[in-house]
Amino acid sequence: MKRVVTFGEVMMRLCTPRHHRFQQATSFDINFGGGEANVSSSLSIMGIPASHVTRFPDNDLGQTAINAYRKHGVDTQHIVLGGDRIGVYFVEQGVAMRPSKVIYDRAASSFATLNPADFDWELIFQDAQWFHFTGITPAISASAAQACLEAVKAASRMGLTVSADVGYRSNLWKWGKRPKEVMPELIEYCDVIICSKGDAADMFSIVPTDEKKSFKSVCQQLNERFPKLKKILSTKRGQISASHNTLVGKCWNGVEMLETKTLNIPDIVDRIGGGDAFMAGYIYGELIYQNTQKAIEFGVAASGLKHTIEGDFNIASVAEIEAVMNGDVSGKIRR
Amino acid sequence: MKRVVTFGEVMMRLCTPRHHRFQQATSFDINFGGGEANVSSSLSIMGIPASHVTRFPDNDLGQTAINAYRKHGVDTQHIVLGGDRIGVYFVEQGVAMRPSKVIYDRAASSFATLNPADFDWELIFQDAQWFHFTGITPAISASAAQACLEAVKAASRMGLTVSADVGYRSNLWKWGKRPKEVMPELIEYCDVIICSKGDAADMFSIVPTDEKKSFKSVCQQLNERFPKLKKILSTKRGQISASHNTLVGKCWNGVEMLETKTLNIPDIVDRIGGGDAFMAGYIYGELIYQNTQKAIEFGVAASGLKHTIEGDFNIASVAEIEAVMNGDVSGKIRR
Amino acid sequence: MKRVVTFGEVMMRLCTPRHHRFQQATSFDINFGGGEANVSSSLSIMGIPASHVTRFPDNDLGQTAINAYRKHGVDTQHIVLGGDRIGVYFVEQGVAMRPSKVIYDRAASSFATLNPADFDWELIFQDAQWFHFTGITPAISASAAQACLEAVKAASRMGLTVSADVGYRSNLWKWGKRPKEVMPELIEYCDVIICSKGDAADMFSIVPTDEKKSFKSVCQQLNERFPKLKKILSTKRGQISASHNTLVGKCWNGVEMLETKTLNIPDIVDRIGGGDAFMAGYIYGELIYQNTQKAIEFGVAASGLKHTIEGDFNIASVAEIEAVMNGDVSGKIRR
Amino acid sequence: MKRVVTFGEVMMRLCTPRHHRFQQATSFDINFGGGEANVSSSLSIMGIPASHVTRFPDNDLGQTAINAYRKHGVDTQHIVLGGDRIGVYFVEQGVAMRPSKVIYDRAASSFATLNPADFDWELIFQDAQWFHFTGITPAISASAAQACLEAVKAASRMGLTVSADVGYRSNLWKWGKRPKEVMPELIEYCDVIICSKGDAADMFSIVPTDEKKSFKSVCQQLNERFPKLKKILSTKRGQISASHNTLVGKCWNGVEMLETKTLNIPDIVDRIGGGDAFMAGYIYGELIYQNTQKAIEFGVAASGLKHTIEGDFNIASVAEIEAVMNGDVSGKIRR
Amino acid sequence: MKRVVTFGEVMMRLCTPRHHRFQQATSFDINFGGGEANVSSSLSIMGIPASHVTRFPDNDLGQTAINAYRKHGVDTQHIVLGGDRIGVYFVEQGVAMRPSKVIYDRAASSFATLNPADFDWELIFQDAQWFHFTGITPAISASAAQACLEAVKAASRMGLTVSADVGYRSNLWKWGKRPKEVMPELIEYCDVIICSKGDAADMFSIVPTDEKKSFKSVCQQLNERFPKLKKILSTKRGQISASHNTLVGKCWNGVEMLETKTLNIPDIVDRIGGGDAFMAGYIYGELIYQNTQKAIEFGVAASGLKHTIEGDFNIASVAEIEAVMNGDVSGKIRR
Amino acid sequence: MKRVVTFGEVMMRLCTPRHHRFQQATSFDINFGGGEANVSSSLSIMGIPASHVTRFPDNDLGQTAINAYRKHGVDTQHIVLGGDRIGVYFVEQGVAMRPSKVIYDRAASSFATLNPADFDWELIFQDAQWFHFTGITPAISASAAQACLEAVKAASRMGLTVSADVGYRSNLWKWGKRPKEVMPELIEYCDVIICSKGDAADMFSIVPTDEKKSFKSVCQQLNERFPKLKKILSTKRGQISASHNTLVGKCWNGVEMLETKTLNIPDIVDRIGGGDAFMAGYIYGELIYQNTQKAIEFGVAASGLKHTIEGDFNIASVAEIEAVMNGDVSGKIRR
Repeated sequence: MKRVVTFGEVMMRLCTPRHHRFQQATSFDINFGGGEANVSSSLSIMGIPASHVTRFPDNDLGQTAINAYRKHGVDTQHIVLGGDRIGVYFVEQGVAMRPSKVIYDRAASSFATLNPADFDWELIFQDAQWFHFTGITPAISASAAQACLEAVKAASRMGLTVSADVGYRSNLWKWGKRPKEVMPELIEYCDVIICSKGDAADMFSIVPTDEKKSFKSVCQQLNERFPKLKKILSTKRGQISASHNTLVGKCWNGVEMLETKTLNIPDIVDRIGGGDAFMAGYIYGELIYQNTQKAIEFGVAASGLKHTIEGDFNIASVAEIEAVMNGDVSGKIRR
Repeated sequence: MKRVVTFGEVMMRLCTPRHHRFQQATSFDINFGGGEANVSSSLSIMGIPASHVTRFPDNDLGQTAINAYRKHGVDTQHIVLGGDRIGVYFVEQGVAMRPSKVIYDRAASSFATLNPADFDWELIFQDAQWFHFTGITPAISASAAQACLEAVKAASRMGLTVSADVGYRSNLWKWGKRPKEVMPELIEYCDVIICSKGDAADMFSIVPTDEKKSFKSVCQQLNERFPKLKKILSTKRGQISASHNTLVGKCWNGVEMLETKTLNIPDIVDRIGGGDAFMAGYIYGELIYQNTQKAIEFGVAASGLKHTIEGDFNIASVAEIEAVMNGDVSGKIRR
Repeated sequence: MKRVVTFGEVMMRLCTPRHHRFQQATSFDINFGGGEANVSSSLSIMGIPASHVTRFPDNDLGQTAINAYRKHGVDTQHIVLGGDRIGVYFVEQGVAMRPSKVIYDRAASSFATLNPADFDWELIFQDAQWFHFTGITPAISASAAQACLEAVKAASRMGLTVSADVGYRSNLWKWGKRPKEVMPELIEYCDVIICSKGDAADMFSIVPTDEKKSFKSVCQQLNERFPKLKKILSTKRGQISASHNTLVGKCWNGVEMLETKTLNIPDIVDRIGGGDAFMAGYIYGELIYQNTQKAIEFGVAASGLKHTIEGDFNIASVAEIEAVMNGDVSGKIRR
Repeated sequence: MKRVVTFGEVMMRLCTPRHHRFQQATSFDINFGGGEANVSSSLSIMGIPASHVTRFPDNDLGQTAINAYRKHGVDTQHIVLGGDRIGVYFVEQGVAMRPSKVIYDRAASSFATLNPADFDWELIFQDAQWFHFTGITPAISASAAQACLEAVKAASRMGLTVSADVGYRSNLWKWGKRPKEVMPELIEYCDVIICSKGDAADMFSIVPTDEKKSFKSVCQQLNERFPKLKKILSTKRGQISASHNTLVGKCWNGVEMLETKTLNIPDIVDRIGGGDAFMAGYIYGELIYQNTQKAIEFGVAASGLKHTIEGDFNIASVAEIEAVMNGDVSGKIRR
Repeated sequence: MKRVVTFGEVMMRLCTPRHHRFQQATSFDINFGGGEANVSSSLSIMGIPASHVTRFPDNDLGQTAINAYRKHGVDTQHIVLGGDRIGVYFVEQGVAMRPSKVIYDRAASSFATLNPADFDWELIFQDAQWFHFTGITPAISASAAQACLEAVKAASRMGLTVSADVGYRSNLWKWGKRPKEVMPELIEYCDVIICSKGDAADMFSIVPTDEKKSFKSVCQQLNERFPKLKKILSTKRGQISASHNTLVGKCWNGVEMLETKTLNIPDIVDRIGGGDAFMAGYIYGELIYQNTQKAIEFGVAASGLKHTIEGDFNIASVAEIEAVMNGDVSGKIRR
Repeated sequence: MKRVVTFGEVMMRLCTPRHHRFQQATSFDINFGGGEANVSSSLSIMGIPASHVTRFPDNDLGQTAINAYRKHGVDTQHIVLGGDRIGVYFVEQGVAMRPSKVIYDRAASSFATLNPADFDWELIFQDAQWFHFTGITPAISASAAQACLEAVKAASRMGLTVSADVGYRSNLWKWGKRPKEVMPELIEYCDVIICSKGDAADMFSIVPTDEKKSFKSVCQQLNERFPKLKKILSTKRGQISASHNTLVGKCWNGVEMLETKTLNIPDIVDRIGGGDAFMAGYIYGELIYQNTQKAIEFGVAASGLKHTIEGDFNIASVAEIEAVMNGDVSGKIRR
């Protein structure tokens, strides 16, 4: 099977154990994560060959990050070494009414200071069928945005399916341009996006034009603006508490709004990466089931399981996800 | 008080901590457990003298297993040393919609390769009043089945109450005979069994003969087939998720079907050993209260508390179990 | 801002990790706590200058206790060194239907054997505006009760607001006098107390005189008996399980019974110190909002967050507490 | 084989992990230990039946202490329950030039407040051949001293070998009498003692009378004073650092001074209990080898191994100790 | 650069933490190791492309083992899935005079029950330049020995350098043939072996024929017997204690006995895998330096560093090893 | 007693536990440290009032850093909040021949981007008697160098003793100026410096002018160049391995070269902060003993103890340091 390629920053995630507050912690658990790399690792664990492309410092921390992805079978041969530091994000896991807190420390990372010329997209996309990125990548720095543009152009030219998680991060976009100046050109090359109503407004100044079916009307406008776009995904997260969410997946396929049942997600272990798990599940579903309704159902089930797993990676097998997709949330012991 | 004797394999249980998946774990927590030994340890902790009989390798792991039972007061003097290895089972604790996973590695264990002649049941049953085993023991190997048969014969001859947890394990019974060829002879010597409808079908080809009160009709047939049988126990577990179950206990006493209220079991810490805790609680109840209805109520309460305790052992006092039995699940701090 | 001063015993709290039972534990997590010191530390973390006054042994454990309070900014300069030992309490954290257990080992502690003359209250109360103690302090020893009386007299004389958490602890009061012989004199100097119906009966022989509005009638009698008293606080805890409580705060202001909405507190991490967090929140509210209704709402929100935090200290910011007070219990990640 | 009986206080030992200082520690590792119980547990691990007699509080901590000894096969049936608390000692493990620190918190323990009438020595010494105690026991309280006297009288009367580790602890002996008023009467019943020159002076006012062979002259005087005494043991510890000691064992047998070679003890893991391991090894040697020279050699080897093992218990097999006794300190892997 | 291929069993290594004895441990640290796979992982970490070939069960433990090698860049594509279980070995790390203990539990592992036909050596050796195995592999089972023979034949035929660590393990070789019946045929295809005097006697009945230069005379006989053999390696380990060794490397190149200086190895963290680290270092040296004297010096330095690293893998860079090789053992901080 | 004030960057130190390599670690232990803050914390622990001045981000990590110093009694009221991030350094603790590795990630930290105007040195130095900084501070950024210059001028003007640890860090000094352009002006205001021969060359172009007593000749030139300078300190570290060092302290007092005995430092737990512990010890000695020879002896003893303590802080009491200073390195247990 041809590879899925993802491109974006990977950060070292330092998380207080046992729900400890930052002021209590005497240690951090180490994981690695990034919106795009979480998709690669999920796919690789599900058996889909996947490559992640990024830039790490040429030191032990960069090597440790590479190891984390190699461990789960992600192809890391196109990762570039250089720059001064790996981005870090600190996590304090919340519980019940206490939210999780994230402190980003990613400025001037090796990824942010990448040189677009370091990435030979023609080479990277050989034997690839899908390219995925997120709105975080162009938000990081001018050079990251430039590399991203070159990537989508090459991917599109070489016939890959291109997908993007168009998420607006207000604490990024500090390098000079606003998302509205950058994102539209990138989305022109996309076949699939995840995009909420808020994102559509922030990124493309698209707002619902009717009162009732508002997200549908946003999707219709997105389709008009970006004719290559075939699928517009969205998730609706119900936030009962830090330990209890619900999730619904949606997909506008240009004709109708597909939608999953609501998945109840109690006893959350780690919510981070839940959206990326949905995306990876969706890609798996499109590639293997070749059925969009099943793809979003598989995506929601994958995301649900991710909430029971510590770390950004969704270490869940296809069989496990399919069980949840088929309604088995009984948690009955597997012997 | 006279002793309760149990006989069966004890395995080293290696469990990933903090709900980690096998692929994440960097350590295993060590516990020991076995369907019969869990009953002995429960009873000993409740103050009932109990002996466990098994076979361990003559190495540090066998000694460590013995220590685990001695620690809680279980008499281990009749444990035989020999053979090559202690059976192991690996556990990944599930949570919410993610099931726990168990990988057994028990083939060719010291118990499986036991020599029936090593156990002097006349000696072992001196000063004993009750003998308990499970359907796992005869499923392990021909020699284990043989030893089990010798044990029930001796126990019956010496006037002990004999109980069995007739649980069919599809991944055992690899030594040549099918359960239907072995179990009936063993059950002939039993006074009490735990047996589900499925077990009755798998083990004795007994199926409900009416439509409505189906388990009752199974019990009536069991009574006919095994005239020594006085009590047929059963539990009904509601599986809402890996973290949330419910439990009901039942007992057919030859006349009527006794039944407990449904116990709600949320926030599960460790579900393994829950059935054995019910059995131990039932035995305690019969011995101390001499009242079968109270015995199954105590058994369900004991099982409920077990779900809040890590490991196979039910480290709960009689007072704590009685509080739950009497409806106090408020969890109010005991100072 | 002028300081809040608290006075009372601090114990080393040794808690089994991971909900382990005492018989399972191989280590204890170390924290420090005390009903009054928990109020100081909460207030200091919220930005209110606070001093705690107590007595520790002049050894490494006493120094470690001091460090625990200094860490969170509590002024410890008035802590006296001397005596033989720090009081200890052992905690086994419960879960679901299994209650937490506390074993106290505080007899003959440095605090219990204090010399009232060691505390120069005139000096201690310089620049202070509020003095808080609990009914535990006079229950510990004759000298502690004597020091407490001297403290409330000085505080009252110097114009501080005096508050007390009048909690009856049946396992204390072993030094010769009964609470009814001691507490009334102390409460005469108080402006604010937390007092349940049970406490009022145990401490002051005051029982409801009407049938319906019973706590109100208790408050009216307390007001008559203790004319200085301006506010009588009370909390009502719903105990669904060790992992799930609800909380309501009340305040009789001499005219009407103010009351908060019921806060749902699921997924409890650590319930100990929840009452002290309410008291600290209340004091914060009175000092900053100068509004009693808001003060009890802030207190309940503070207490709710405390239940998500391990240890006696309520390491929660004003912004976090206000979010809960304003109804945001969604636990949405803060990035 | 007949049992060895020991009598004395057992404390909960709370030790900072990883050589952390008290002011750094966030947890304590839990072990149990006591000068006499360490001898019982060592002997039981070596296969010599051993009983320990003491008094514990009737709570979970007392039960946990009992479990710790049962785990290693020590007979605990004569342990009495009662009193308020288990004694505690806090340990900060030193390393290199930094000494270990011990903070005792044992006042008013269940053992200190024992009632001599609770111990039926006739019953306890049935089937026993040896009784061992230390100078710590009579130092704890008047009642402990009284019970000790009754024990040695009964043991002597019933023909047991009686041994004592006569160690003077300056921070005990607070109950009214000085060691010189108490110890001589106890030693009259002893067959074997461990006694240093300092102890002889402190306890019996015996000082060397010659210049050269000073310890020999002390032993000769002890023999004269206590005619029942057959063996006087002593160890000489070279203290190079907290991580590196040396050890020599000596025994005056009434005729000559037997002495072992110097054992080099580098890379110390835990020095506590090293003396008790020597005593247990000596008893083993006398009972099994029936050769005093071998007994002290085995004792020194046992003590050396103890220094490599965390906790008070010497979890070392006879084969392991004999290897060291025979000069194999190569640490070559045993596969 | 062409790959190095290794073939042999990988076991899950379960090691007690903090030098705990088996009877103390409450958890095991998880690592993976095997004599041949340790060579692959070392080489991969040094930048030499390496493949390991083995057989794992098709379960989570097998996958976790694969992950452990992928993490460090070892090519795992030729690993075969099947069989019932992964072999396990339990380790208790010794210290000072206390030896490490290893308990093997590898019988009937997936590797032992491999089918030689599952390995397509022509395919596996494409792009490979070196094949390495150890005497453990043919000792495990008849089929493992058969696969090994097929491998060396194919490797030899395809022009790879073939090396073997000829180590006699007395607790293996239980499948019917003795090493002398199996090993000689395998060694006929080898270019390089590690072989001690003892191994030569056990495996080939070759004993020194002179008195003085005894190992040299063994080597000369080995050269005569196995004409393809170009290098005969040997290490000499000085065992001062479990925490302190010394190491010398030797190589008979057919003409003279090359020898390294003695490396002092104090403060040992983990001695297991030290020999494999030497072998990997030697292979690195031959491939990169193309100088046998440097190769054994690099091997000894690599082995020395391995002793400071927990686990079977030698996670040390070429630069770090070269520093030790060049005599820098000062441990000066690298900033 | 008047305060000692220190000024410099504090970093979060993230250290792999148990000597794990970066590529093995699954968690980091959290500590805080900085060359100057280590001096403050040491002095505060010894009972000398000390203030540390620095700049932290206004987030939970900054607050946690403040807490770490408050815990040990360091006055933190002059710490400024602002900027984007706390500097981080990652540590892999070496052992034996394997060096510790440090990866700095401190660029653009809150300290590096400080505004000199934020520090009111007149206010900060009220009630202070000594100001200490290191050569790291001016190396970080232009503004840090500027603030440092303002501090030494104010300190000198206000009559404080000014000391500097003149250490050249080749991986800093990236802000535009070379040390030779910056350091001399700062040193003009100093009374005491620690300066090696290498530092003198790098910073001041001063090289030994004679052959034999070379450091003395450097000191004489330093005295000529910087007339205010009264003491020039130096330490000589013998690096036997990462686990074994030796240390000598020296002081040129303008007349003669004082020197300590060589302290043997085996079994090193944590070498980081050893130099700062020497400096703090020296300051203590000058302030309390008012004797320079004793001051450097105390400094060397303090530094030796620091090597046995994990983390940057020297948690050692004056009594403990004095024992080492007086030659007691026996590590005999303190009970």
